[in-house]
Amino acid sequence: MKPPLRVAIAGLGTVGAGVVRLLRQNAGLLALRGGRELALAGVSARDRGRDRGIDLSGLRWFADAAELATDPAIDIVIELIGGADGIARSVVESALSHGKSVVTANKALMARHGSALARLAEAKGVSLGFEAAVAGGIPIIKTLREGLAANTFTRIYGILNGTCNYILTTMRESGRDFADVLAEAQRLGYAEADPSFDIDGVDAAHKLAILSSVAFGSEVDFSGVHVEGIRHISALDIEFAAELDFHIKLLGLARLTAHGIEQRVHACMVPRATPIAHVEGVFNAVVAEGDFAGRVLLQGRGAGAEPTASSVVADLLDIAAGRHTPTFTMPAAALQKIPASPMLHHQGAYYIRLMVFDRPGVIADITAALRDELVSLESMIQRGRAPGEAVPVVLTTHVTEEAAMRRALARISDLDSVLEPPRMIRIEDL
Amino acid sequence: MKPPLRVAIAGLGTVGAGVVRLLRQNAGLLALRGGRELALAGVSARDRGRDRGIDLSGLRWFADAAELATDPAIDIVIELIGGADGIARSVVESALSHGKSVVTANKALMARHGSALARLAEAKGVSLGFEAAVAGGIPIIKTLREGLAANTFTRIYGILNGTCNYILTTMRESGRDFADVLAEAQRLGYAEADPSFDIDGVDAAHKLAILSSVAFGSEVDFSGVHVEGIRHISALDIEFAAELDFHIKLLGLARLTAHGIEQRVHACMVPRATPIAHVEGVFNAVVAEGDFAGRVLLQGRGAGAEPTASSVVADLLDIAAGRHTPTFTMPAAALQKIPASPMLHHQGAYYIRLMVFDRPGVIADITAALRDELVSLESMIQRGRAPGEAVPVVLTTHVTEEAAMRRALARISDLDSVLEPPRMIRIEDL
Repeated sequence: MKPPLRVAIAGLGTVGAGVVRLLRQNAGLLALRGGRELALAGVSARDRGRDRGIDLSGLRWFADAAELATDPAIDIVIELIGGADGIARSVVESALSHGKSVVTANKALMARHGSALARLAEAKGVSLGFEAAVAGGIPIIKTLREGLAANTFTRIYGILNGTCNYILTTMRESGRDFADVLAEAQRLGYAEADPSFDIDGVDAAHKLAILSSVAFGSEVDFSGVHVEGIRHISALDIEFAAELDFHIKLLGLARLTAHGIEQRVHACMVPRATPIAHVEGVFNAVVAEGDFAGRVLLQGRGAGAEPTASSVVADLLDIAAGRHTPTFTMPAAALQKIPASPMLHHQGAYYIRLMVFDRPGVIADITAALRDELVSLESMIQRGRAPGEAVPVVLTTHVTEEAAMRRALARISDLDSVLEPPRMIRIEDL
Repeated sequence: MKPPLRVAIAGLGTVGAGVVRLLRQNAGLLALRGGRELALAGVSARDRGRDRGIDLSGLRWFADAAELATDPAIDIVIELIGGADGIARSVVESALSHGKSVVTANKALMARHGSALARLAEAKGVSLGFEAAVAGGIPIIKTLREGLAANTFTRIYGILNGTCNYILTTMRESGRDFADVLAEAQRLGYAEADPSFDIDGVDAAHKLAILSSVAFGSEVDFSGVHVEGIRHISALDIEFAAELDFHIKLLGLARLTAHGIEQRVHACMVPRATPIAHVEGVFNAVVAEGDFAGRVLLQGRGAGAEPTASSVVADLLDIAAGRHTPTFTMPAAALQKIPASPMLHHQGAYYIRLMVFDRPGVIADITAALRDELVSLESMIQRGRAPGEAVPVVLTTHVTEEAAMRRALARISDLDSVLEPPRMIRIEDL
């Protein structure tokens, strides 16, 4: 058997502690599966004294994470500090530059600097593992890079943020409104005190940018992702969605179009008959569509110390066993710079909800606005009657271009009888 | 770039033709992802003249598949002949013995001779890829061997036969009975003229034996699988299942118990709230439960030329890129011989359907039989009343041992008022 692989962990938050527990609990199995022992050769964190529920005695403690990256007694650095820049980035760059393979759970780092890091890893002949950066315990990076590598991917999409999925699931099951459910999620620890990173779609966008690059062989382009969150989703929309046989999900979706690579994160109307509609609560799921495999769905826990540790250590095992895959599946020089397809070119169907004065002629005005922009109506629901009062009207359209839809919405907003800004949720053909 | 990898295909049925199409259609991508060209260096099949919808001109044709295995101009043999023994087995053994890696879609071969073949491949220092042998286009072998390799698996289960899942789904959706739906599946090409291999559970059992070995590090033990099919499932049982909030699925399940490794294939009552209940039609799905990742589900197409070709070529790419994993995740010598846990020791809940004479005292007799075997009743449904006629009675039990359940069923069968052999379907806690 080969000598132990000496790994060090930079950052001992919940995930770091999970990795330490995993390396200890499954040590024998890991040595068998990796062909060599995984030895914890050093740790580093801001606060040495904090109780993490794990025994750190006997471990080499590095006051400065930067030293882990250069220490000759360390083979691999696991970066669990977080953040797109700052210490995390400098530790990763330094470790790669010193010829050490790196395993990271840092989605922001990979989304913003992934292409440059891939070139650096390749130049140094080392591996850069980031399975844990996307969808926690779900081995989606390996699935795209290896398991489905024989396929030309036609589309990738998924539920990439457990906080949003928990909120939307709970809203649907309870009929409660967004703010109320968010507050509960915060109490339960499913949402941060400052939840904007999750509920405004940024976290999902980081993950989507990484997945796109892996699937389409393009340079990572986080700035090209169209991002919307879920703050505007109301209990009323969820009710109408059910009536139309949809579930509302925050999805990240990517595909190649005639205009470039389309990457978008926003709330979607998902047909109830499609598998991803049934991925509930904090679970994540990713669907890869390949020209030969067809639609493959992976579902599991998208966050948490233990699932994330599972992915971190899977990357370690690949390195221990000598299995190497280029960071984004192909040589860094072969990655293409594909322009972002502008969202105005998006083609899709739409759900529109209006609050209107219930009086004769309102629907005629609205449908005229759609007709003038050549948007074709698929269905209309006006529930209840309340002459002279505000009532909701829901429209769904056939496939149209986003630009036309937005022009039509601007016309509709201008109508006197339309009382609030229209709510628009894209309907996905999954 | 490394020289081309010279691959040969033994067996040009629908999957073989799919592999040829894939190698051609995605050639450029495969070279980028594998780091070298995948060159088709030879083919062999029984009938050279048959129209397969692919151009075979310019390819080296081997009249005898055995010659592929020894030809020095071939690096890898893809075995797509099928069958646990005969030519398929001898070609695989010969190719491995001659130092060639082998990729196979042959589940019967791997289920019956997998451990011996793993030892041979290891002795020769070559790879034995069998992703395509289980669940078609779903990369479940890679997921267990690598993506989730950091986990101690607690249980593996799945829908492993698309024919059965199609039949059960259609029965549920249409309310029709088994024989009728089977005949339709045969007309549509979803079931073979002789369907017993699928509907009696043998095909699923082959796949389960392979999955168990990969997950639990045990020698493949096909003969240890308890196998039942779906011929006995009636429209009435499917109706009662719906009433009890279950879907009926043919599952393969494996786990380690105090009595050894429990491997079983049979129809199951699956709670409607669990993800696998929603895997419908010809789709397959596998759930892996790991101590760190938790529950991970993979779903996709379990058969067909193109999904299977996707998995065959993924194995080729691993070999092309120099990525090697031991056949059953760990060195062959480390695989354990784990005894099969006898089915009589199985612990679970049960659904029992009886046809009884509707007369006073019947239920008292039945519940007394259960009590006498210490089987605890969870619910009872007696629908309709028809004094003096046959009516169905459905019972569900709490968790009990299979041996006790069978003794209770024998007592119940002996009751005068019970008109047909009781139907028993196990309820799974998923």
